[in-house]
Amino acid sequence: MSAVEGTRLYDLAKAGDFQAFAKLLTWLERAPLKDALGIPALLQPARAAFRFGITGPPGAGKSTIVARLIGSLRAQKLRVGVIAVDPSSPFTKGAILGDRIRYSDHYLDEGVFIRSLGSRGSLGGLSSAAFLMARAFDACAFDILLIETVGVGQTELDVLHVADQVCVVLVPESGDSVQAMKAGLMEIADVFVVNKSDRPGAAGLVREISASIHDGEAARAVEVLQTVASENRGLERLTELILLAKSKGSMLANRADPKRLREEAKALLRAQWESALETKLSKINAAKDLLTLFN
Amino acid sequence: MSAVEGTRLYDLAKAGDFQAFAKLLTWLERAPLKDALGIPALLQPARAAFRFGITGPPGAGKSTIVARLIGSLRAQKLRVGVIAVDPSSPFTKGAILGDRIRYSDHYLDEGVFIRSLGSRGSLGGLSSAAFLMARAFDACAFDILLIETVGVGQTELDVLHVADQVCVVLVPESGDSVQAMKAGLMEIADVFVVNKSDRPGAAGLVREISASIHDGEAARAVEVLQTVASENRGLERLTELILLAKSKGSMLANRADPKRLREEAKALLRAQWESALETKLSKINAAKDLLTLFN
Repeated sequence: MSAVEGTRLYDLAKAGDFQAFAKLLTWLERAPLKDALGIPALLQPARAAFRFGITGPPGAGKSTIVARLIGSLRAQKLRVGVIAVDPSSPFTKGAILGDRIRYSDHYLDEGVFIRSLGSRGSLGGLSSAAFLMARAFDACAFDILLIETVGVGQTELDVLHVADQVCVVLVPESGDSVQAMKAGLMEIADVFVVNKSDRPGAAGLVREISASIHDGEAARAVEVLQTVASENRGLERLTELILLAKSKGSMLANRADPKRLREEAKALLRAQWESALETKLSKINAAKDLLTLFN
Repeated sequence: MSAVEGTRLYDLAKAGDFQAFAKLLTWLERAPLKDALGIPALLQPARAAFRFGITGPPGAGKSTIVARLIGSLRAQKLRVGVIAVDPSSPFTKGAILGDRIRYSDHYLDEGVFIRSLGSRGSLGGLSSAAFLMARAFDACAFDILLIETVGVGQTELDVLHVADQVCVVLVPESGDSVQAMKAGLMEIADVFVVNKSDRPGAAGLVREISASIHDGEAARAVEVLQTVASENRGLERLTELILLAKSKGSMLANRADPKRLREEAKALLRAQWESALETKLSKINAAKDLLTLFN
């Protein structure tokens, strides 16, 4: 596991070898960060995928929406990657089956690559891995990267710093959770989706979200959509918004934006620090050992 | 601000100079951790105060209880220190008035020293400062150190790792918060106090807590008390429990316990890391700078 091995895997992946790409992602997850960042294309990609984050409470239908989006984006001949950080996601469950999982509909489709990020649950570890993997999707010529994360904890929300735009998925019953998550959600959301909107309360929730957006100081235009993902209703507009943002977006400029690079740096540092923590602590057996922490 | 300055302040404080003790605490908060730990008596105290943590939701009456405990412990001729981490505490409000605050009843009492820990709200910073200050109270011959912290966030709860024993203060209306905090509270509590227990629901809450203790696997004996601190009712038993634990406790052994030292090490490392973070991030302006993080 050296930077040489990573570069070899990257070269194969770039040439279209999916198995090498899967190995590259695993290598990135495990390699020392300095080695991982030592692949020049990762730090200076020639092109970049549009990264679309999808978050929301468990059971909101995020995975169904992701599956639908894969379909509509593939219909446009776009290469689609998925990083699933949701422990309840069927994608993540699939992780047990192996490194590379394809959603059943897309099992034989070489234009789709789905990767789960499982239980590296420690502070920063998830974000760090997501940042590195997203760079690999950039470097290996994917057009769109969907990042599915369950919007419950700070760790999961931190992962969304990786995204160029963020979609928050809610259901009519989410009224209360909107209140609870409001501050955090309003800041990060570029699109709201009220899914399962054939249920009572959908219109009310749309009004509530719209009012909150209006109250906020956000200068950005935030759209609120109603969908029934299980029946593929209302998702055309979401696909449209992604394509629009992708065509307008300057993803390469985004990757070079110092503000975003600092979020990435923070995630990488946290991961490095957390992984060093246990080793350092194991050396503490007496009070005088506390001094060795700072040598 | 060198280790020499810290040692000088420590020597004066040890000799009974309260002003030097106040300056020592401030010095410990600001000095590089290596310098702070460089005072031998801090790492290897000749005696140690019994550290009693008091936590609970805002408005539960923690500060009133602390004030009552100061009174009853002073009546036993014990030297009492207080570290208040509760932003709503009158002790903390007093921080605006100066470094050293004495609760009004004890204004002229040289056997009481109260210090607030204010807004070093960053991850680990509070715990790190609390650990260092508690060591200063140990080294300067205090008998009891009360640590008041509001039990809302992980940061505040982390501070309780500093304590030898922990008391959780609730009020009859806290039923819901008990549910919410149960897991965390049950693990850390050595005593529960249902304060303001002249209000309806006190007996019910006591039953609920007792049942939870019974459900838990805790082998420790956890006592549940009812108090009305504003009228000084029911606090004799709490004072008794503190004195009992102090007489039984092996505080010097506690300070040398590797498991506890590792909690302390973690707090110190986090503080060091957080304080280095902004400096490191400010150097990130382009993707290639990410590599410099790991040099």
